[in-house]
Amino acid sequence: MDPKSASNLSFILNKPHDVQFSDKPVPSLQGPHDVLVAVNYTGICGSDVHYWEHGAIGHFVVKDPMVLGHESSGTVVEVGPSVKTLKKGDRIALEPGYPCRRCQPCLSGHYNLCPEMRFAATPPYDGTLTGFWVAPADFCYKLPDSVSLQEGAMIEPLAVAVHIVRQAVVTPGQSVVVMGAGPVGLLCAAVARAFGASKVVSVDIVKSKLEFAKSFCSTHTYISQRIAAEENAANIKKEAGLEDGADVVIDASGAEPSIQTSLHTVRMGGTYVQGGMGKSDITFPIMAMCLKEVTAKGSFRYGSGDYKLAVDLVADGKVDVKKLISGIVQFKEAEDAFKKVKQGEVIKILIAGPNEKIESSVSAVAATA
Amino acid sequence: MDPKSASNLSFILNKPHDVQFSDKPVPSLQGPHDVLVAVNYTGICGSDVHYWEHGAIGHFVVKDPMVLGHESSGTVVEVGPSVKTLKKGDRIALEPGYPCRRCQPCLSGHYNLCPEMRFAATPPYDGTLTGFWVAPADFCYKLPDSVSLQEGAMIEPLAVAVHIVRQAVVTPGQSVVVMGAGPVGLLCAAVARAFGASKVVSVDIVKSKLEFAKSFCSTHTYISQRIAAEENAANIKKEAGLEDGADVVIDASGAEPSIQTSLHTVRMGGTYVQGGMGKSDITFPIMAMCLKEVTAKGSFRYGSGDYKLAVDLVADGKVDVKKLISGIVQFKEAEDAFKKVKQGEVIKILIAGPNEKIESSVSAVAATA
Amino acid sequence: MDPKSASNLSFILNKPHDVQFSDKPVPSLQGPHDVLVAVNYTGICGSDVHYWEHGAIGHFVVKDPMVLGHESSGTVVEVGPSVKTLKKGDRIALEPGYPCRRCQPCLSGHYNLCPEMRFAATPPYDGTLTGFWVAPADFCYKLPDSVSLQEGAMIEPLAVAVHIVRQAVVTPGQSVVVMGAGPVGLLCAAVARAFGASKVVSVDIVKSKLEFAKSFCSTHTYISQRIAAEENAANIKKEAGLEDGADVVIDASGAEPSIQTSLHTVRMGGTYVQGGMGKSDITFPIMAMCLKEVTAKGSFRYGSGDYKLAVDLVADGKVDVKKLISGIVQFKEAEDAFKKVKQGEVIKILIAGPNEKIESSVSAVAATA
Amino acid sequence: MDPKSASNLSFILNKPHDVQFSDKPVPSLQGPHDVLVAVNYTGICGSDVHYWEHGAIGHFVVKDPMVLGHESSGTVVEVGPSVKTLKKGDRIALEPGYPCRRCQPCLSGHYNLCPEMRFAATPPYDGTLTGFWVAPADFCYKLPDSVSLQEGAMIEPLAVAVHIVRQAVVTPGQSVVVMGAGPVGLLCAAVARAFGASKVVSVDIVKSKLEFAKSFCSTHTYISQRIAAEENAANIKKEAGLEDGADVVIDASGAEPSIQTSLHTVRMGGTYVQGGMGKSDITFPIMAMCLKEVTAKGSFRYGSGDYKLAVDLVADGKVDVKKLISGIVQFKEAEDAFKKVKQGEVIKILIAGPNEKIESSVSAVAATA
Repeated sequence: MDPKSASNLSFILNKPHDVQFSDKPVPSLQGPHDVLVAVNYTGICGSDVHYWEHGAIGHFVVKDPMVLGHESSGTVVEVGPSVKTLKKGDRIALEPGYPCRRCQPCLSGHYNLCPEMRFAATPPYDGTLTGFWVAPADFCYKLPDSVSLQEGAMIEPLAVAVHIVRQAVVTPGQSVVVMGAGPVGLLCAAVARAFGASKVVSVDIVKSKLEFAKSFCSTHTYISQRIAAEENAANIKKEAGLEDGADVVIDASGAEPSIQTSLHTVRMGGTYVQGGMGKSDITFPIMAMCLKEVTAKGSFRYGSGDYKLAVDLVADGKVDVKKLISGIVQFKEAEDAFKKVKQGEVIKILIAGPNEKIESSVSAVAATA
Repeated sequence: MDPKSASNLSFILNKPHDVQFSDKPVPSLQGPHDVLVAVNYTGICGSDVHYWEHGAIGHFVVKDPMVLGHESSGTVVEVGPSVKTLKKGDRIALEPGYPCRRCQPCLSGHYNLCPEMRFAATPPYDGTLTGFWVAPADFCYKLPDSVSLQEGAMIEPLAVAVHIVRQAVVTPGQSVVVMGAGPVGLLCAAVARAFGASKVVSVDIVKSKLEFAKSFCSTHTYISQRIAAEENAANIKKEAGLEDGADVVIDASGAEPSIQTSLHTVRMGGTYVQGGMGKSDITFPIMAMCLKEVTAKGSFRYGSGDYKLAVDLVADGKVDVKKLISGIVQFKEAEDAFKKVKQGEVIKILIAGPNEKIESSVSAVAATA
Repeated sequence: MDPKSASNLSFILNKPHDVQFSDKPVPSLQGPHDVLVAVNYTGICGSDVHYWEHGAIGHFVVKDPMVLGHESSGTVVEVGPSVKTLKKGDRIALEPGYPCRRCQPCLSGHYNLCPEMRFAATPPYDGTLTGFWVAPADFCYKLPDSVSLQEGAMIEPLAVAVHIVRQAVVTPGQSVVVMGAGPVGLLCAAVARAFGASKVVSVDIVKSKLEFAKSFCSTHTYISQRIAAEENAANIKKEAGLEDGADVVIDASGAEPSIQTSLHTVRMGGTYVQGGMGKSDITFPIMAMCLKEVTAKGSFRYGSGDYKLAVDLVADGKVDVKKLISGIVQFKEAEDAFKKVKQGEVIKILIAGPNEKIESSVSAVAATA
Repeated sequence: MDPKSASNLSFILNKPHDVQFSDKPVPSLQGPHDVLVAVNYTGICGSDVHYWEHGAIGHFVVKDPMVLGHESSGTVVEVGPSVKTLKKGDRIALEPGYPCRRCQPCLSGHYNLCPEMRFAATPPYDGTLTGFWVAPADFCYKLPDSVSLQEGAMIEPLAVAVHIVRQAVVTPGQSVVVMGAGPVGLLCAAVARAFGASKVVSVDIVKSKLEFAKSFCSTHTYISQRIAAEENAANIKKEAGLEDGADVVIDASGAEPSIQTSLHTVRMGGTYVQGGMGKSDITFPIMAMCLKEVTAKGSFRYGSGDYKLAVDLVADGKVDVKKLISGIVQFKEAEDAFKKVKQGEVIKILIAGPNEKIESSVSAVAATA
């Protein structure tokens, strides 16, 4: 595709519920290690929807119009003079956050914690619901022939799940409980299986989501009840035959009762990872953490090696991300797609790039109906 | 000392605030790896005082009369036929909990998490405020000549601190904030220094305790204010020149505001360890933990290698536990000693064994006056 | 089976190539945590064959007649009064080495390094080619219904491979090269796959073994040539598309050229594990290890969690150990079986216990013909 | 200092034993994150001497004239527009190797393994025996007021030792044996002490070096004999009271007999790190490594956090690097200084920068006489 003659139409949030389409100038490479990428597909994330609805997440506030989107695949259309790993025409998954490479977190291998991170669709940085995008080559991951560009747009949420499961240090033979069966919870469960977990228990309040989880990857499921956290924990342990508790519990829901249940479900000396965002402060069973010597960890975005492993897991057939794609819409239908995600009618919906020719097709997935 | 002609007087809790002294039969070795130990000195722990006052800690309830005490040094008076590492007359620090050696935690090196642990002065097991005590030889740690039996009684709380600091994986050059300047908080601060921490900040609400901390080991101190946790955290960071937050925060207080402050004080990617006991459930800044990718850990008692390292730290002169000993009383004055600890007049008070000849001497330490 | 009326026939090595069968008294439980096990099947290990031929391995010398065998499955026929995890009739895999539970390695979770280990068929301790065997219950691993007793006898070599792969800390997406395609090399390759390795390269000098490896689990194979180690390494990297070298290299051969090739095959910052026994001293590319910051590790037997995970891997269908069983012979044919293993005609041959009724059946497996 | 009016005299190696002084143009900042540094002091490293004598180290061959030197301190004279952490006049220790920041080792926190590293005085890159030097600001470490610029030139070899000791994961209470008592061996011993090692044993063949080691930091010393490695190992263990072997052994000599002794000295499950360079291939006790489950590691230069910790250790008074400085010479005496180092008459000699006004003073240190 020739960027000179192609559209760089962008989907822009002005303020809550106020969006527009605008054809922006095609960006130029910023340095010799950069590539220019034509965006093929972009998934919608909960954070995108949150900005669209509220104009802010925590202290990140949309003050100026901002292009939305950060879960994208693309095709390389131009490479800088120092780029050796990519060439024009390469199909890629696009890691959307660029660290400074010079701070202590960056130099020590934790670039996701870089305080100067420029992350797509996080104010004040524009996102990827646009025609063309400039990225450093080392943040573009070539897709093998066996992986489609639609699957490529699923690498971002899969990398989130990979990072969470790595934070949990899941090893073969372990039991893993995942609270929440939304896209990230489902992907955490699938990645935990791919890491060799013998038992993977999905927990949610929506029965249809759990049915999907079971068909997707989970060995056990549990419908969370409106009872004390200790009781839900006891039920989960009983359901999955985990008398001593689970080796690992991942909260992918952010919900207070789920987090409480997590601490009561994990075994002595086990690990709990907080992967979902929610309220800033909650009532937390601190003595359960202390007396069981639980290792609790946060997980934030993704870092070194996560995107690469996500691509490998799809290429090796270990995580079938296609099953999570409820549908694909044309670029001009972006706002409708946001509404569908908001209404919970779909698992994951992709928006085609403005230069992509497709027929829109969205199926309300049974699991979430 | 000949156990046949010596006293096995024991200090027994019948129910809250109801104690008695009783001369029990001298116990016999239970197996070929056991030794019989004459108890020389025993420190009083907050948990002993809690049983004395309330008759229970959590679900551990004193139903039958129970001998108190578990922080003891002693002298070997008899060794089983399979014991190779100790001989009669050896002076030892006494590790007071004995695991099953056969469960998954035991076999994997985490015997402190053994569900069948028999721990001194934890119902239904008797404690060490008695004349003679039977222990497996591998839970008795020979004191070098340079370490006194009084110091030997301090090895138990020091091992608690060693375990906490090891859970935190403190390494040279790090900054460590310790919430609470009671005996365990002070020892955590001193152990963190011995592990090479460049900055150790003690935080408490009592000024005199912080003055003692500074004279003992801390490089900085901060008096906690009745303000928001974020503000206390900001003050601590400013006070200690920790713009990006502390590498490690240890809560040795168990107090809700201290725990909240801990999470706001720790840096991106840092570690927080909960070492103090308190309320079961508290309001907890979960998103601070999540977004900063904090590693949070509980710490429970002590395990493999902790007692040995505690003895080494004292022998090498790295932690001067003598400074924490406010006084020593005769065995018959045990109840008075409990009262003094309860009233907060002392840092650590030791009770001589019933066969020990001493003059009682307790000084109210300035730091806690 | 009633031990009183059953055979306790044992296969005894008197001195090199001098064996006998003798009916020994059925052993008694040694303590309350022991169980008595009727042995069902026992595999033959290279070390068994080495003792049979040479009467010694290193400084372990057979001075008195010794029962051979240590890779066994069995059925519980009696349980001690303190045993809660097993009952009469349970089918088990038998971990054949019993540590002291009291030394520093034991207490810190590394019981395989216990200096007082009593290991079956390692002088002066008898082995498991016998009718009945006494073991502590925590070293007997219940087989799920889906795992046969013949598979149960394969758990021992599988646990060796599990320990090696764990020493190598193999994680999903990695590339793993395994030098040697004998039973342990094949199992290492299979376990590496089960741990999520994307590429597993088997290397051997025998083409038929590599063909079997490919059918069993390996993604790539390479026939080692009589050329410099650097050249073999370059060929392996080219063959498997590992331009920067392999993440992990496991030597399961013990052969000097293989070890040299291992160090030249592993990537910068990668891991090499020595899993096979061979000459005490070899010519070793030490600067390759130093300049690439390779982590090199030994692996010795198996330890905490290895047997359990081995059973799980078979139960979950992740490692199909049945494919390695070349045949089963009657107990009285034990010496013939040793000869077949010595001649390299089989991968793994099992000897039925003396109370087992079977038809002998050995197939020379194509892979090793 | 004004770079426009100051000397940029450089000490250049044309070919073995053929050096010259030449006034080169003052370099310019390469990017906005760079600083220009006036070099104050530069230590001479064994690798500098090796290039001077042989014109090559391994496959690094000096083809074109190359400025020598890489152990330097300096003063900031100009800062790029994006530099926030340094200002003109800041005194710094200069990390002399600059990685690409984009490869897998760089992104995962192991920049010392970057294949595109540009390292001072490693062909084809010039070194720091010059007047002015350009470096990225994040590779310049501000010296506290309490640390002199002469000490600042010692940070480089200290960082080498810090990296080695970190590779060895030395923790408080451990026993550490260091083979070799040259500058790096001495610094490894001192750093091991600073990391809390209870016993540090220095081993060398030169008595005077060991006497210096004892006065500097070591708790024990041993003069290596011309006997079998096992015997030297047995003697070391006896000398230092390490019946079960040392927790950690560091080889800082590169000598074959020392490496062999290292493997026989380390305990079951212990760690050995190869920190010194020597022959590519040696006779190595591989079965000792395998059967004891030793973790062996290479160590190459220094990486994330090492320089910072080295500065901290000097600032905190934990490693007194001044004691290793045998003398300082004027820039024009650089070749004489190389000769002195070659002859082994000194521990560490510093060369003043060409703009530095000093009186030369070199004392042959008793320890190495």
